[in-house]
Amino acid sequence: MFRFQLALGLGSLLIVASSTAQEKAEPMKFGMVIHGGAGTIERSEMSPDNEKAHRAGLERSLKAGYDILQRGGSSLDAVEAAIRVLEDDPLFNAGKGSVFTHEGTNELDASIMDGRTLKAGAVARLQHIRNPISLARLVMEKSPHVMLDGDGAEAFARSMGITLVDQKYFYTDERWQQLQKEKAKISPAPRKDEDKHGTVGAVALDKSGNLAAGTSTGGTTNKMPGRLGDSPIIGAGTYANNLTCAVSCTGDGEYFIRAVVAYNISALMELKGMPLAEAAQAALDKAAKLGGTGGLIAIDKDGNFAMPFNTSGMYRGKVDADGKISVDIYK
Amino acid sequence: MFRFQLALGLGSLLIVASSTAQEKAEPMKFGMVIHGGAGTIERSEMSPDNEKAHRAGLERSLKAGYDILQRGGSSLDAVEAAIRVLEDDPLFNAGKGSVFTHEGTNELDASIMDGRTLKAGAVARLQHIRNPISLARLVMEKSPHVMLDGDGAEAFARSMGITLVDQKYFYTDERWQQLQKEKAKISPAPRKDEDKHGTVGAVALDKSGNLAAGTSTGGTTNKMPGRLGDSPIIGAGTYANNLTCAVSCTGDGEYFIRAVVAYNISALMELKGMPLAEAAQAALDKAAKLGGTGGLIAIDKDGNFAMPFNTSGMYRGKVDADGKISVDIYK
Repeated sequence: MFRFQLALGLGSLLIVASSTAQEKAEPMKFGMVIHGGAGTIERSEMSPDNEKAHRAGLERSLKAGYDILQRGGSSLDAVEAAIRVLEDDPLFNAGKGSVFTHEGTNELDASIMDGRTLKAGAVARLQHIRNPISLARLVMEKSPHVMLDGDGAEAFARSMGITLVDQKYFYTDERWQQLQKEKAKISPAPRKDEDKHGTVGAVALDKSGNLAAGTSTGGTTNKMPGRLGDSPIIGAGTYANNLTCAVSCTGDGEYFIRAVVAYNISALMELKGMPLAEAAQAALDKAAKLGGTGGLIAIDKDGNFAMPFNTSGMYRGKVDADGKISVDIYK
Repeated sequence: MFRFQLALGLGSLLIVASSTAQEKAEPMKFGMVIHGGAGTIERSEMSPDNEKAHRAGLERSLKAGYDILQRGGSSLDAVEAAIRVLEDDPLFNAGKGSVFTHEGTNELDASIMDGRTLKAGAVARLQHIRNPISLARLVMEKSPHVMLDGDGAEAFARSMGITLVDQKYFYTDERWQQLQKEKAKISPAPRKDEDKHGTVGAVALDKSGNLAAGTSTGGTTNKMPGRLGDSPIIGAGTYANNLTCAVSCTGDGEYFIRAVVAYNISALMELKGMPLAEAAQAALDKAAKLGGTGGLIAIDKDGNFAMPFNTSGMYRGKVDADGKISVDIYK
């Protein structure tokens, strides 16, 4: 009960914060919003060097996306490029920096959606793919399917000429220690938010007015092998539609699946005429009512954007048509 | 282009048919609707014995669900029981009668959702589970997760005391011949509809006013191992919410995922106040516009139901509060 009230309380605060940000920020002609995961991220526990490194990673990702958008490239290319940067950065829970499962393995999920065609691609339980977001895109563009899983997805990757990497590639000391700490606990739950919410994502609007969204994750530390969260689920963790918006979520995947969060934002806009920021907050609140915490990023066809979250922090950033980059971590 | 027009044409016809059915049929106080897959099912190609066997299977399934509902049992129990009957019947593409992948293996998916709590469970790529729907329910009720996949899901099954079956259990001559025929083709596409759309599902409203939905499938003949369709995806193939409706889909899974069909019906009811039959048809039409064919079953909180499809047939049936069972196959 307490948790529910807290979530609602935070939700109300966030509506205000989000509206203020919305008033100050003009809609973008084109641009991109990214996240690097939401969770318990306290200023007091973050060293200056660590904060600086996270900020630098987010900025590199935004820069990669902006370079593409600025020269007239597609939102799909920008989303893929921005997420690849975060996947290659060991600080974020996706690609290289993915957390470990209970068995000490890494299982990576990702999805991408093209708002122009409503085409989508998703991959799950990858163990040997450096950039899951690029494989999700290949599934979308080069296979008759939307979602490929595990060894099947990796066989498809091989057929596309992608070099598989050894599981060792995903080893980082920090993530390994997180697993040991987690396993040493008598009961696995409750975990700290930061272990649960690591995910990266990007949404973009390009000069042609096309929207795209993508999400990539290593899942949750100490997860049961085979557990899929919302990141590879179209409609839950990722959704894009030129008529409405592009969305990428990060949070308690189970609750985001049950609340169909990403598509719900699009439905609220399309069917209720709700503005993006309000729809994004309402969809997040719906997941919070079920018991889930997290956040999301969204951008609409007119360049409005929203980055609500109900945790103490969310790694996030945006770049607008002028190339102005801004990143934030805390509330 | 022709295909698109055809789909729309059928869509319009179905709206009429569906409205007529709706006028004739009173809302049920409690009851259940099931499907055994949609596709190219032509009266001229169906032997009397084969038709009789399919009808008998659907009737057994409805009877199993009704027995539970009638004595005051939950919609969740009824959905699980009805789907187990179809999973055990070799005629339907789920459980025992599952089709073969390109590699000659069987990979089964299922999902279930409780409209009262919005809790959900899903399993994918099972190779040794006789009744995937029951494992999906265990994931919902006995794990902290919503979706478990492959060996991870089977390890969980073992921990729950479920006996795993050998892959041989899923061998049926008819499905094996379908695979050989499929593989003999120079190009795997286009396949006949009936190979693509086999799936079983059930939706129910119980005496307490609770809704539930479930879906189970063997996927598509000759599918790439690792391919997931809409059946295990909450929001796409399955959705239930006491505020609106319960839905189970069957069709070109890829298009049903992209159109988030099951949840879209609920959204159209909740956000637009659309009646069930209209919402069900609109959601199916949206998938058809993208290029996908299939059908779905839906029941709402007031006992209205809908069974639209845009293929030549869909195995389907319903049972109302009086225990009156009716089954249909063709248009």
